[in-house]
Amino acid sequence: MSKGESGDSGMSIQTLENQVIIRNEKFIEKGKQLKPQLHETIVKPTSIVEIKADTEVIHGWRSEVAAPASTLANYKYGKNDSFILDFGDHQVGYLTINLRPAGSPPDAPLKLKLTIGEMPVEMAEPFENYNGWLSSSWLQEETIFVDVLPAVISLPRRYSFRYVKFEVIDTSPKYQVVFESVECKAVTSANLNAVEKISHQDAELQRMDEISIKTLADCMQDVFEDGPKRDRRLWLGDLRLQALANYETFRDNELVKRCLYLFAGVPDEKGNVSANVFVAPKLIADDTYFFDYSLFFAASLHDYYFATSDLETLKELWPTAYRQVELALERLGENNILKDSDNSWSFIDWVEGLNKQAPSQGVLIYTMKQAIRLAEELNIPEKNNLEERLEEIIEATKTHLWDQEQQFFISGSDHQISWASQIWMVLAGVLTKEENSKLMKRLLKEKPTVGIATPYMYHHLIEALLVSGEKELAIAEMKSYWGGMIQDGADTFWELYDPKNKDFSPYGSHLINSYCHAWSCTPTYLIRKYNL
Amino acid sequence: MSKGESGDSGMSIQTLENQVIIRNEKFIEKGKQLKPQLHETIVKPTSIVEIKADTEVIHGWRSEVAAPASTLANYKYGKNDSFILDFGDHQVGYLTINLRPAGSPPDAPLKLKLTIGEMPVEMAEPFENYNGWLSSSWLQEETIFVDVLPAVISLPRRYSFRYVKFEVIDTSPKYQVVFESVECKAVTSANLNAVEKISHQDAELQRMDEISIKTLADCMQDVFEDGPKRDRRLWLGDLRLQALANYETFRDNELVKRCLYLFAGVPDEKGNVSANVFVAPKLIADDTYFFDYSLFFAASLHDYYFATSDLETLKELWPTAYRQVELALERLGENNILKDSDNSWSFIDWVEGLNKQAPSQGVLIYTMKQAIRLAEELNIPEKNNLEERLEEIIEATKTHLWDQEQQFFISGSDHQISWASQIWMVLAGVLTKEENSKLMKRLLKEKPTVGIATPYMYHHLIEALLVSGEKELAIAEMKSYWGGMIQDGADTFWELYDPKNKDFSPYGSHLINSYCHAWSCTPTYLIRKYNL
Repeated sequence: MSKGESGDSGMSIQTLENQVIIRNEKFIEKGKQLKPQLHETIVKPTSIVEIKADTEVIHGWRSEVAAPASTLANYKYGKNDSFILDFGDHQVGYLTINLRPAGSPPDAPLKLKLTIGEMPVEMAEPFENYNGWLSSSWLQEETIFVDVLPAVISLPRRYSFRYVKFEVIDTSPKYQVVFESVECKAVTSANLNAVEKISHQDAELQRMDEISIKTLADCMQDVFEDGPKRDRRLWLGDLRLQALANYETFRDNELVKRCLYLFAGVPDEKGNVSANVFVAPKLIADDTYFFDYSLFFAASLHDYYFATSDLETLKELWPTAYRQVELALERLGENNILKDSDNSWSFIDWVEGLNKQAPSQGVLIYTMKQAIRLAEELNIPEKNNLEERLEEIIEATKTHLWDQEQQFFISGSDHQISWASQIWMVLAGVLTKEENSKLMKRLLKEKPTVGIATPYMYHHLIEALLVSGEKELAIAEMKSYWGGMIQDGADTFWELYDPKNKDFSPYGSHLINSYCHAWSCTPTYLIRKYNL
Repeated sequence: MSKGESGDSGMSIQTLENQVIIRNEKFIEKGKQLKPQLHETIVKPTSIVEIKADTEVIHGWRSEVAAPASTLANYKYGKNDSFILDFGDHQVGYLTINLRPAGSPPDAPLKLKLTIGEMPVEMAEPFENYNGWLSSSWLQEETIFVDVLPAVISLPRRYSFRYVKFEVIDTSPKYQVVFESVECKAVTSANLNAVEKISHQDAELQRMDEISIKTLADCMQDVFEDGPKRDRRLWLGDLRLQALANYETFRDNELVKRCLYLFAGVPDEKGNVSANVFVAPKLIADDTYFFDYSLFFAASLHDYYFATSDLETLKELWPTAYRQVELALERLGENNILKDSDNSWSFIDWVEGLNKQAPSQGVLIYTMKQAIRLAEELNIPEKNNLEERLEEIIEATKTHLWDQEQQFFISGSDHQISWASQIWMVLAGVLTKEENSKLMKRLLKEKPTVGIATPYMYHHLIEALLVSGEKELAIAEMKSYWGGMIQDGADTFWELYDPKNKDFSPYGSHLINSYCHAWSCTPTYLIRKYNL
């Protein structure tokens, strides 16, 4: 995800002037010890391509093979020449360029511009024109001066890409350059061999499973990153979904454990865990806190424990998890309903105007149930207290947030009926399975206007359908959403996708969207967990 | 110098399709063994400056101190902020930037643009507008992405500069950056302590001497470079002048020796030494050959021997020197006058339309005399043969190139009267000292239109005046030329300077001119050698 900067679409900036972090050095050290080794693979480009304008395809740009990449060294490039390499699939890694001069000895440096992108649009539309509100520094480009040729240039930064555009800005009239080879050292901490292969009879689901796994692998670096192009960071909400997909595929449980310890290592003075952490140059808690994300620490610990039976970690991290629930409960009013405020207190989704009260109440109930299961495992008295509070909260939720007449959950003082509220109440199990099924069908039929903005929320829609027993509807929704991305050319699943508005970007430009994004990787979890 | 690329002003491109190099591995190895250690000095900027438009100063831009550089760390810089540092004097070296974030943890990379320049104009006029015919890759700039902050960034390329402009292209709305420190690791192979200090009673000559020495030091790297900004290369014509200045100052004779071996290591199949060599990634002879430059191998060996008495080197390199003279003599017609052709066969100077015949004849005679002196030292029979040929050539020169009526030397089929022809004939000593004195005075009085373009040719003008006994005139010319550069703000002497047209650049833009250029460093030689 990316919520660090201000903008529209329900996103907003959080900057805390007086953030106090209580560092738990034992946890930080434990997280550090679990830092994974990255697996490296050398990947060569497959083709030299041209990007053609085409109104029929997403963003209006289509890639077309011009020549096999193996012919690259046959060409000489001089001032203002350019070419685009296609690596055939999404890559996360480091570029190495092997260059030699052709003609007279190089009597001036080579000035070379690289544009590195996940999608054809990034090759076609100049970054100079980008005017969105996320930092332009995320756009992947480099201008390189090469003083001595021949040269092997290993670029120090990691890129997330499929395409690389090379523009020779200048050489001199006396020489040109030949690109002997270009390669990518792809990196991931995921062990690709650990994944059990499936042969799904439905080719579309099979493909969706594969792309999910590729997406997850490319986001698995020394932490679970949200997106390797942007923001390359560990977010709690993304972690929870990545971990679920991981348990069904790579089973790299140590990486989940590491991430849990990193979050638990830098709570604020109340014990609140931040929505995301930075791991370089050292572990730093961001100054962004979300009601739902903090609670997902407990959810993630729950999922981790039931995937691993690692009681030691559960015991050690339980106080952190429990603290998130305690802090969440403090937000309840006397009526046991969460106090509402401006929309940045809880994340939920990026839908413009979304009221966060009811969906957050759903998240609270959902997480409390998981916390109770953990307390049960630990056989500790907190269990009873949580159970009592849960009963009161569910009762209050039905009383105050369920609109008997409209047969929908409502949220906030305006009684907003949103998709997010229904979905989270279903996941929270406030109603019976039968009532949930009816509610979900009603939702899909009536389509309230306050809808879904992100794959993250789409995941919860699908899971809500599945826990309501609506497998067919769930598959249909998955096919229309993630299947749509595949039809639109996804090599990995995207941060953002609106089938009705394919140019959608909450940032003011689709150039800056991330096209390999962790919160979009869950189809493999849904397919495998629910035997779709 | 820079003659690698095509253009106007008498410059032209040479690209040989079938250049054959006969590598002398013994010489190459000897040159390699003499590679000097570079001395490093950490230099801090003195001021934060602003560049103001001012029609009264060269190029129309003046630097004005805004604050001491020591206050830099007091400022925070965000998107679109910029500042310019002044290092107080010309530097050749490597930049290190120490940066930290201010505000929230950096949630996007820092995108930083650096513009590095020798003159205020380089800070003020955008490089994007450069449209000259020399490669734009010489313009010193970098765009850097910093993924992790704080950071200490040591840029790998060497720059030649006094000013550095920092433009923060983007951070994110959540953070700014503070430049804790910026420093330059200045490098030179010159031993600054080896120079004998002079206290000249004429402050202008004193300053000229100092700036010459600084210019030479900044061009002394692992070879004698022509210009540390551009082209950073060993040219024979520049080497000859640098060596002369060096004998009067740093006395780093090993570096001269190294350069002589490098040239001698890569002659072509006829034995011709090239006009310049590249030393990285390995020793390579450029495919540019000039009649005069090749002969200057003999001149440079002559000067080296009489500065060092290094008979062993003289013996070893004599065959190379002699071969240049032999090849030059092959160009003589039956009348003992050099055959003329298009103007790229000999360098002499960059004056537009300059005919090279007579000045090259002068260079031939000048060098033959030096070769005879060397043969005399070696006590070898070539001496006699050279002396005989010299007599014939001088006779022919007087007969065919001296215009009795006009009292000037003429050149080419159009009987061109140029400054270069007179100057080189005086240096060659074709006439008596008295006749030379009259000729030089006539030259300064009548001012033929085919004049002087470069400090390189100005050097020869001054020396021609001095050998003619016209010391006062020589000093006056030096003051008006190099003194003019000083008045126009030179920290080091420039590649190009035309007091009557200060915007002059043969490359189509003064942005790309080199403002620290070896062939401009000779005032110290002239002052010290001739006791000015």
